[in-house]
Amino acid sequence: MGSERSEIRTLQGVGASAGIAIGRVRITDRRRVNVTEYELSPEEIPAEVSRFAKAVERAKAELSFLRDQLMTTRGPEHLCVIDAHLMLLDDTMLIGETAESIRSLGINAEGALKRTLEKIKTFFDGIEDEYLRERAGDVETVVERVLRNMVGEKQESLAQIEGKVIVVAHELSPADILQIDKSKVIGFITDLGGKTSHSAILARALEVPAVVGMERVTREVANGDMVIIDGASGVVIVNPGPEEFRDYLQRKQRFEYLERELFKLRDLPAETPDGHRILLKGNAEFLEEIDSIRRHGGDGIGLYRTEMLFFNRTVLPDEEEQFRLYAAAVRAMSPQPVTIRTLDVGGDKFLPDLDLDDEMNPALGMRAIRLSLRHPEAFKAQLRAILRASALGKVRVFFPMVSGVAEVRAAKALLEEAKLELGGKHPFDENLEVGIMIEIPSAVVIADLLAAEVDFFSVGTNDLIQYSLAIDRTNEHLVSLYEPLHPAVLRSLKMVVNAAHAAGIQACICGEMAGEPMYLPILLGLGFDELSMNAISIPRVKKILRRCTKAEATQVAAKALTFATAAEVESYLKSEISARFSESFD
Amino acid sequence: MGSERSEIRTLQGVGASAGIAIGRVRITDRRRVNVTEYELSPEEIPAEVSRFAKAVERAKAELSFLRDQLMTTRGPEHLCVIDAHLMLLDDTMLIGETAESIRSLGINAEGALKRTLEKIKTFFDGIEDEYLRERAGDVETVVERVLRNMVGEKQESLAQIEGKVIVVAHELSPADILQIDKSKVIGFITDLGGKTSHSAILARALEVPAVVGMERVTREVANGDMVIIDGASGVVIVNPGPEEFRDYLQRKQRFEYLERELFKLRDLPAETPDGHRILLKGNAEFLEEIDSIRRHGGDGIGLYRTEMLFFNRTVLPDEEEQFRLYAAAVRAMSPQPVTIRTLDVGGDKFLPDLDLDDEMNPALGMRAIRLSLRHPEAFKAQLRAILRASALGKVRVFFPMVSGVAEVRAAKALLEEAKLELGGKHPFDENLEVGIMIEIPSAVVIADLLAAEVDFFSVGTNDLIQYSLAIDRTNEHLVSLYEPLHPAVLRSLKMVVNAAHAAGIQACICGEMAGEPMYLPILLGLGFDELSMNAISIPRVKKILRRCTKAEATQVAAKALTFATAAEVESYLKSEISARFSESFD
Repeated sequence: MGSERSEIRTLQGVGASAGIAIGRVRITDRRRVNVTEYELSPEEIPAEVSRFAKAVERAKAELSFLRDQLMTTRGPEHLCVIDAHLMLLDDTMLIGETAESIRSLGINAEGALKRTLEKIKTFFDGIEDEYLRERAGDVETVVERVLRNMVGEKQESLAQIEGKVIVVAHELSPADILQIDKSKVIGFITDLGGKTSHSAILARALEVPAVVGMERVTREVANGDMVIIDGASGVVIVNPGPEEFRDYLQRKQRFEYLERELFKLRDLPAETPDGHRILLKGNAEFLEEIDSIRRHGGDGIGLYRTEMLFFNRTVLPDEEEQFRLYAAAVRAMSPQPVTIRTLDVGGDKFLPDLDLDDEMNPALGMRAIRLSLRHPEAFKAQLRAILRASALGKVRVFFPMVSGVAEVRAAKALLEEAKLELGGKHPFDENLEVGIMIEIPSAVVIADLLAAEVDFFSVGTNDLIQYSLAIDRTNEHLVSLYEPLHPAVLRSLKMVVNAAHAAGIQACICGEMAGEPMYLPILLGLGFDELSMNAISIPRVKKILRRCTKAEATQVAAKALTFATAAEVESYLKSEISARFSESFD
Repeated sequence: MGSERSEIRTLQGVGASAGIAIGRVRITDRRRVNVTEYELSPEEIPAEVSRFAKAVERAKAELSFLRDQLMTTRGPEHLCVIDAHLMLLDDTMLIGETAESIRSLGINAEGALKRTLEKIKTFFDGIEDEYLRERAGDVETVVERVLRNMVGEKQESLAQIEGKVIVVAHELSPADILQIDKSKVIGFITDLGGKTSHSAILARALEVPAVVGMERVTREVANGDMVIIDGASGVVIVNPGPEEFRDYLQRKQRFEYLERELFKLRDLPAETPDGHRILLKGNAEFLEEIDSIRRHGGDGIGLYRTEMLFFNRTVLPDEEEQFRLYAAAVRAMSPQPVTIRTLDVGGDKFLPDLDLDDEMNPALGMRAIRLSLRHPEAFKAQLRAILRASALGKVRVFFPMVSGVAEVRAAKALLEEAKLELGGKHPFDENLEVGIMIEIPSAVVIADLLAAEVDFFSVGTNDLIQYSLAIDRTNEHLVSLYEPLHPAVLRSLKMVVNAAHAAGIQACICGEMAGEPMYLPILLGLGFDELSMNAISIPRVKKILRRCTKAEATQVAAKALTFATAAEVESYLKSEISARFSESFD
């Protein structure tokens, strides 16, 4: 087969899952179904509504079948993504509104469904949180499945693929990724998707090299084309020449060698040469990520996100449903601890509703603990589920977006109520540790007052930097102003550690700074007790940690705090690191 | 005449300008022209475009006439509002796009103009800054004038009103307000408008009692109805009974008595009983406000806003135009100082353009000094204009939204370039003092580093509270979380004062906290050197200042800093104030 154009071409996408794969392209039929909207005569409408309902039912049947398959091949922990999709097929917005449009506009089902999808996409586009925005992909995948059922196309499952190939698709759903057999699919490339899409998260957890967000790769390569993909840099080379082959084979060997080397660190303690031990944990939402934390030698989960169950819902998840999920996570990580963060979303995402007013500045809006305190019954249901999970292993709980002491006291009072409500019915850890995210500038300034109220701090560096510098980190015009090494950020981190230690509580970090090996000497030197990061960063950070003494780190941090600008700190840090630890940064 | 329904009715609006007025209603014909959109045949289109052009020309002629009139009655300083309206009549968005719609959509001019207006209003609705959002009113006023010229209605000028009346209108433009003769128009009420609309700002500057934002008052009262308006509380009483008359006559007398009492403070120094002198200045944008600062005994302008010239423009104002405006302000305030803030708007408002991408979180976006540093030529033109104005009186300059040392250094370097560019051509103050707004949390944390770079700090409490607590203060759901007395805010203020004084520079406040008499003991106690506020607040704050010793204030501030929550601080402050200064709070 092979593409007719055989010249070497280098394409750039978004690196979604590190690793190098070299192989032949297998395009799977996941291009979008083409849909035309047309008008119906009034008498055609009832039949069209029922045609739509049948397509929805068929999609449900397919997903249930897939669910059963996955249950057998991967076990019960992996079903939540499929369940989310099944739920969408009962969604009043997606399904109800489409049926309504067929009737009120008198148009065909495909056209009506496309319109609903556009509306939902507009809604998602308005979401500021990158992670949540990417959830729009779930809706598209489900819509695609229903459309296919209406136009009669059949979708090929990735489980059916034979040979050793690199899959190229317009988009792959999380369900697709879960069906990948790594002995056959050595990597994948998609037109759509971002670094934090569910599929990218799963690819990283499963360690399948992947490049996403290529926009039109499905039209730029052909079945049988030889490609090289670099899942770290996002580079895709089509029809590589001998030079590229040699180069990337070497890189692949080097990557795999380093992975093996890093893997050797797995069971070594996260300890400095002068015997200072800190905890290196992983951030997780999916069970696949928990596996990955284990494989990478993490000391537990430092940030377990609970947004998943609250998303795309018309009814809030009840205590039981939440408990089942948290229990699975606690069991999967046991005996190591799981730190569960209560719901951290904005009001517009709590119960999706297109009629909700958009907030002008969602990052400064009704979110996280503010929202939970507004809905005490829903909040207590979550707290009861977390408490019950605490009977199954070591659990801690913490609250996001705390700005002052009053919020912490209110949240703790509700936690006590939740304990009383559980009464003798369910066991739980009476001494469940309670912490807060430090991510709002006011929390830094009054860290001493907050430390008196809780058992631990966890700094969310991403938001803390955003709010401290008044920089929206998703705003492309301001990228250069988003400075983790800004003197105000370093001083804030220091204030937080000092306040925590003065009160005898732990200071942790669960933002992106924790997973950046270059920042390790500073964070260690400032005195942080725990760093939580993406699982794959754990051995990389551990490697530096095991070569950097606490004494050296303390010096580096002290020196870093003397500069007036982020540029000066960065230039100091780079020279220091190349002098002290250069060989560790491979 | 009089309304047929003569029962007593109490209506609630937005208090726009304090004071009580009692009198008969005079409805002025400022209801919206009713517009119907209809389609044209292709051959009718050219005539329609020329009909529209003629209406625009006539509107220009009317405004020019009004401009000449105002020039005679009020002098040249009051023309900028009219000029802004004249400029809109040359605006490509408003005028060009409407003509284009007539042609492309084949509809009548009124319909096309309404469509353009809707687009522009949508654009303005997306603006987060309340002050700027209200500028949409200027566009509506101009559109209304053009529409009237097309449908042949004539508008009555407020200057033609006879008798002593309370004007009721759908909306009054700033030009309308400027024509008010206070011996005839004793107050006004409008359907539209907000607290920070141009008309409300001018009403306060001219001290005409006013209630705005009544929504449908033009339909709820009739010519000749007796009404009482309370411009502080926003209450309007229609057909008051003897009791209401008595009550509000007393309130009116009390208000006027207190105003006279406060007026007596005008020429007394802003000094504590134990001889501590601080500066009480006014915030201003319009020349009318400068008059008002003088009348209220202000020590100069602590915040002179320069956004006006940049608004609703398709071409940036040049150095000359800016110089003329700043020169007028400096001359009007002389010999007292004027502190000029460089441009403080978001990117979407710099050059209005409907195609500009909306920012997800404008409050965390490309604004203020970030924008100025991105457009060094435009920024230097503003700096040259400010420098030239500094030859005419005491001037200081300061930069908004500074987050770190690098920005200050970059801005100062451009100021030096601006000085060089002026060369020998224009005189300026070689020692022009340079300051920064402290309104971003990072600036608080590194206040000591910033103090080494500048001559003064001015704390923008509104934004500082917003960013420190991650609360959008325009978000109605979060009103209760916007806490000026939050312990983190008080500590931040203390950090700023301490850093300033350690470096031997001045610490000022120009946010709303400065104008709130209740906060005076804390701000004085923390050590602020200067407070800048709305002109009418100056005597109220001065009254407390002249009764509160520095020693007492220092105690109050120290005690306030010991509490863990804003609620505790507030309850302490209230009890303290009722114990010490109750009689001062009338």
